[in-house]
Amino acid sequence: MYSQFPLFQSHIDLAHRYWKELVLPGDTIIDATCGNGHDTLVLCKLDADAVYGIDLQQSAVNNTNQLLKQNLSPQQLSRVKILLHSHACFPAEIPENSVRLIVYNLGYLPGGNKNITTMVETTLASLEAARKLLLPGGAISITCYPGHEEGQKEKNAIIDYASKLSPQVWNCFEFSSLNRKQAPSLLLLQKTK
Amino acid sequence: MYSQFPLFQSHIDLAHRYWKELVLPGDTIIDATCGNGHDTLVLCKLDADAVYGIDLQQSAVNNTNQLLKQNLSPQQLSRVKILLHSHACFPAEIPENSVRLIVYNLGYLPGGNKNITTMVETTLASLEAARKLLLPGGAISITCYPGHEEGQKEKNAIIDYASKLSPQVWNCFEFSSLNRKQAPSLLLLQKTK
Repeated sequence: MYSQFPLFQSHIDLAHRYWKELVLPGDTIIDATCGNGHDTLVLCKLDADAVYGIDLQQSAVNNTNQLLKQNLSPQQLSRVKILLHSHACFPAEIPENSVRLIVYNLGYLPGGNKNITTMVETTLASLEAARKLLLPGGAISITCYPGHEEGQKEKNAIIDYASKLSPQVWNCFEFSSLNRKQAPSLLLLQKTK
Repeated sequence: MYSQFPLFQSHIDLAHRYWKELVLPGDTIIDATCGNGHDTLVLCKLDADAVYGIDLQQSAVNNTNQLLKQNLSPQQLSRVKILLHSHACFPAEIPENSVRLIVYNLGYLPGGNKNITTMVETTLASLEAARKLLLPGGAISITCYPGHEEGQKEKNAIIDYASKLSPQVWNCFEFSSLNRKQAPSLLLLQKTK
C-alpha cells in the first residue's frame, strides 16, 4: 500500500529524494567525502554524465571502488572517477561553474580510524571551493553528525557559514530530527543564480 | 530544463511534496486551520476521498469556500466539508485512527484581525486531539511563524512537545531556513505504528 513507509525515517530519505530530483542528464556531480562509498553508489545511479568521488584515505577509496564494481554496470562505472584527494580543495580538472551537486557526509570513516575525522577548518575551506564549482541551480548537500563533539562543532560552524549566505543567491535549509537528539542533520544549500 | 527551479524556495515546496507522496486514494485528511483556504485547495487536489477544513473564524470559512468553488470541479467539491470549528478539538464525526494527514498553518489570518492568532495552549490541545485521529502511517504537518512573538513562543512549545514523542512511534522532523531568520518552519510528525 505504501510506496515507502514511513515516509521520512531519517534525513537520508530527504537527501535521496532531493538528489534524484535535482540531478539531470548531462550533469557533473561530486561526492566530496566517499567514506565507504554508500552515497557514491546512490549518486552513480542518478542521471548524471560524470560522477567524481574523493576521499583523503586510501582505505575509503578502495572500499568505494569495490562497492561500485560490485553494484554498477560497466557503462555506469565508465562515468565515475574515484580520486585520493582532500576535500579541502577539488581536483583541478573540474571547472568552475560546472557542477550540479556536491555531497558531503562528514565525520569519521565508519569502521575506520575515528581519530581521522573531518575538521571544521578543512570543511569550511572545502565549502568555499565547492561554491565556486556549482552551476546556478546547483546545490551542496551536507550530512552533519552532532552526536560527537567535533561533529557538533562542525555543524555549528557550517550553520553559521550558511546563515551568512545572501538569500538573494542562496536558499539554505536544515532538516533535522526533533525527537532523536543524536540524529544527523541534513543541510541543503542551493545556489539560485 | 528544470521541473522546478529552485528546488526548495521555501518550506512550502517540501510541504507540498510531502503531502502528495503521503496521501493515498481512500484517505481522509484535515486542514485544521483553513485561513484563506490556500492549503485546503492544495489538499483537495490530492488523492484523498474526504477532506475536512476547519477554522474558528467565519471569514476564513467564507474565504475558503469561495476559493474552493472557484478552483475545484463539482466532483472534487463533493469530497470537501468546511466547518466553523476551533482547532482545539475536531468534529465528532471524524473517528479516531482514521486520518492520513492533518495540516496546520499557524498564526493569524492573512488580511484578517491580527489579534486573533492561534495560541500555544489551544495548539497543544489540538495536537493531542490530532494524534488520536491519525492512522498508523499518518502525519501532522505544521507550519510555524517564528517571525512574530506569539509565533516564536508557539514554535518553541511545539518543538518541545514533538521532542518528547517516543522515537519508537514517531518520526519528528523540522525543516527550517538557515539564511532567512524570519522564515516559517515546517514540522513533520509521522506516526509509524
